[in-house]
Amino acid sequence: MEKLQRNERIAALTQILSNHPNKLFTFNYFVDIFGCAKSTLSEDVELLRGIAEKLQLGEIETISGAAGGVKYIPMLGKHKIEMILDELCKSLSDPNRILSGGFIYMTDIIYNPAYVDNIGKIFAGEFINKGIDYVVTVETKGIPIAMMTARAMNVPLIIVRRDSKVTEGSSVNINYVSASSRRIQTMSLSRRALKKNSKVLFVDDFMKGGGTAKGIIELMKEFESEVAGIAVLISTKEPSDKFVRDYFSLLILNNVDEQNSIIDLMPGIKINKTANDKI
Amino acid sequence: MEKLQRNERIAALTQILSNHPNKLFTFNYFVDIFGCAKSTLSEDVELLRGIAEKLQLGEIETISGAAGGVKYIPMLGKHKIEMILDELCKSLSDPNRILSGGFIYMTDIIYNPAYVDNIGKIFAGEFINKGIDYVVTVETKGIPIAMMTARAMNVPLIIVRRDSKVTEGSSVNINYVSASSRRIQTMSLSRRALKKNSKVLFVDDFMKGGGTAKGIIELMKEFESEVAGIAVLISTKEPSDKFVRDYFSLLILNNVDEQNSIIDLMPGIKINKTANDKI
Repeated sequence: MEKLQRNERIAALTQILSNHPNKLFTFNYFVDIFGCAKSTLSEDVELLRGIAEKLQLGEIETISGAAGGVKYIPMLGKHKIEMILDELCKSLSDPNRILSGGFIYMTDIIYNPAYVDNIGKIFAGEFINKGIDYVVTVETKGIPIAMMTARAMNVPLIIVRRDSKVTEGSSVNINYVSASSRRIQTMSLSRRALKKNSKVLFVDDFMKGGGTAKGIIELMKEFESEVAGIAVLISTKEPSDKFVRDYFSLLILNNVDEQNSIIDLMPGIKINKTANDKI
Repeated sequence: MEKLQRNERIAALTQILSNHPNKLFTFNYFVDIFGCAKSTLSEDVELLRGIAEKLQLGEIETISGAAGGVKYIPMLGKHKIEMILDELCKSLSDPNRILSGGFIYMTDIIYNPAYVDNIGKIFAGEFINKGIDYVVTVETKGIPIAMMTARAMNVPLIIVRRDSKVTEGSSVNINYVSASSRRIQTMSLSRRALKKNSKVLFVDDFMKGGGTAKGIIELMKEFESEVAGIAVLISTKEPSDKFVRDYFSLLILNNVDEQNSIIDLMPGIKINKTANDKI
């Protein structure tokens, strides 16, 4: 290939790194593609790092040494996160979403790539330094958010099933009590699904009593693995005494008033604090 | 903000476009961010278009007129698609994947962002010009692939459930016959899930008899909508007489020989033809 101009290298570098969040590329990988000197590439990377910082487009991290290279860490700025939370609150508080029984219709939001991409990036930004090996979710509604979190963190996704499936081989099944319904539920996960001594991030769309999260903690113990973080889109204010204490919740649902058609939803407090730290 | 250099504008432009595949951004959007003249931006976009073409990083499409702007269409080159298919075939043919009953364990691949991102882009590239309004899948295993397809196409995802859920309001339920098991199955979708007169792309991980795809066609009729395309990761060679005829399959499964531990899997013929057209 003919030699590339700096502009061209910068564009290609940006495109490849952005399309593979958190994936470490060696300098040689780009040297080979671009046919440039390593020192030239280093200059390109430095330039890109400066631009990303200036425009709050995420972080460009370089790792030196034999196993080193460069990677892109999607990291949304505080202002962007606040805008996203406000938009989510506004959209999800629409009284037309209230369903019989006080439930909120939200699949149009939590299955929509435009929203879910951002939610995944916020979760990833929060847990990126926790040595997460897998993102884990339980079927079905949390899967898109969990998938985009896994993508942003560049780790595999694990989907826990409600019952064992012939297409997943022998499985570990556990029973747990749903905090909200007090009913006994089952979780099933293929024995092949994860390596032991793994650290996982549990991601879900909604948390009320925290029974599912607690179930996942139990299930991970069966795999000699550990839940190193819990991230949910919405948690309810009540019960305040949930089965799990330490979790990251983007939004807090105070109340759904079916009679007066009011959904009282607000940004989670924790996110503001964290976002402040980051900027 | 201080004025940006061309390098900086190119990087920011690339990053923003890559992170929002198929989303149309107005020229004014970037003019505002960059604080540059529209003519300067046009030059940047032209430059970027050239680079994307040269390095096969996808297409930069500009649309002129009042409602115009620029968007990035992820489009993998033929060589890249062939490499992906070969890698998928190799990985999925590993005899260790054979489960009792002749099933293949594949959740480590079909839930892994590194693979699924590419599969979604190949599907999107194939159907991008069909006026697709939604990507539709049935829970559970096809969801990650469907999500990444929806992301690449910049359309919402719809997940059809196996039974109706209180969290999704009133629903349309249909019964259909699974082609492989000959059992009656149910599909359920919230009445709110899609607008009528929509065109949808049905995405799934696996197709044998095509009963599920046929079920989705029936279900979409209930919403006065149309299945404008079917894309699956793997379809089986037999039965050749499936319930649906027109589908796009990345891989063809000829046979699983449990006794001799052989999985006979090959790239789908259709993809080669299409990929040829594109380069």
